[in-house]
Amino acid sequence: MSDPCSPPARRYDYETDGAAIYAQSFAIIRAEAALDRFDADEEPVAVRMIHAAGMVDLAPHIRFSAGFAGAARRALGGGAPILCDARMVSEGITRRRLPADNPVICTLTDPSVPARAAAMANTRSAAALELWRPHLAGAVVAIGNAPTALFHLLTMLAEPDCPRPAAIIGCPVGFVGAAESKDALWAAQPVPCAIVAGRLGGSAITVAAVNALASREE
Amino acid sequence: MSDPCSPPARRYDYETDGAAIYAQSFAIIRAEAALDRFDADEEPVAVRMIHAAGMVDLAPHIRFSAGFAGAARRALGGGAPILCDARMVSEGITRRRLPADNPVICTLTDPSVPARAAAMANTRSAAALELWRPHLAGAVVAIGNAPTALFHLLTMLAEPDCPRPAAIIGCPVGFVGAAESKDALWAAQPVPCAIVAGRLGGSAITVAAVNALASREE
Repeated sequence: MSDPCSPPARRYDYETDGAAIYAQSFAIIRAEAALDRFDADEEPVAVRMIHAAGMVDLAPHIRFSAGFAGAARRALGGGAPILCDARMVSEGITRRRLPADNPVICTLTDPSVPARAAAMANTRSAAALELWRPHLAGAVVAIGNAPTALFHLLTMLAEPDCPRPAAIIGCPVGFVGAAESKDALWAAQPVPCAIVAGRLGGSAITVAAVNALASREE
Repeated sequence: MSDPCSPPARRYDYETDGAAIYAQSFAIIRAEAALDRFDADEEPVAVRMIHAAGMVDLAPHIRFSAGFAGAARRALGGGAPILCDARMVSEGITRRRLPADNPVICTLTDPSVPARAAAMANTRSAAALELWRPHLAGAVVAIGNAPTALFHLLTMLAEPDCPRPAAIIGCPVGFVGAAESKDALWAAQPVPCAIVAGRLGGSAITVAAVNALASREE
């Protein structure tokens, strides 16, 4: 009979220290992943993206344009807002890592979005970006879900008068439009950008990139 | 010169109809992925998990215990709460798909959690599960982030008096403890459960499983 006043016996032997879990995880990634082509600014971003994916084979799909990591870090340090296409992205960003209490904005659930989407004949994810315009100058864009959002951002940035973000993380995921939208961003490079080429991507990888750019702390 | 009153020209040719994007995506997955070993209850869950991952090679890692899909669907249909280990999971669940306006609960940000974690010498993700106890009977558990949460759930369920959930989706991701915690769930099977074996997993895959179990609508 167990003592009813004692805490339940731990039946499983596992690491319970959060900092140790991160340190061991990043050490495994650095031992296993092909990271040589990333510079010192990019490497911690790639490591954290791989961590979120649980997959060292993500490494060859990650692409940073020249100067991307520096541009994004400077923007965040200067208080830039972070514009997110999905609530899973905006909710995943670790607020205490942000260097300047940066605003984290997701307009997808704005009440005007369904009508805008209908009027634009596009998805709600794309229509929500029209509400980014007042925040777009100098922002860090984090698109981790919808290819239509990334395509619509590129369409907006083809307008001469559309404000320019400081950097774009373009990591929509999936089977229809994801690879194509990221290829289009990589070809256009309207501002410094990062992508995960192909079908892979998603909110967790996108959040990881933001969290890595926000702070050098591992 | 473009007409300043005309809408911006769309420069990119892409599918803008959300329902068509889903239909095309699921058709690609069903053409490419090895789904034969899933029954009719499981197959739409596996398809949506693959969709969230952007990776047909996820299929061989997905495991459903006998009766899992039916148990989870019945629980959701009966109004079971959905208990989530992370805000990215709780925020990702599509509320309009839920059959009974099911409560979606994430206790991670409860103000008591940091002190509980310190007292337990475990992570905040594990400590937050102590607050699940009043909701656990008959619930659907969705763990998509923290191996320590899944290990602590198994520890709680080893107590004879701990209430039993109806089903567990155990899909933590990563390099330290993720594979081990899912192996432990699969070995113990305290209730019907689903896992993604190995390092892969995460909030998006977990959310996709919940969304598929919540509604047959594709």
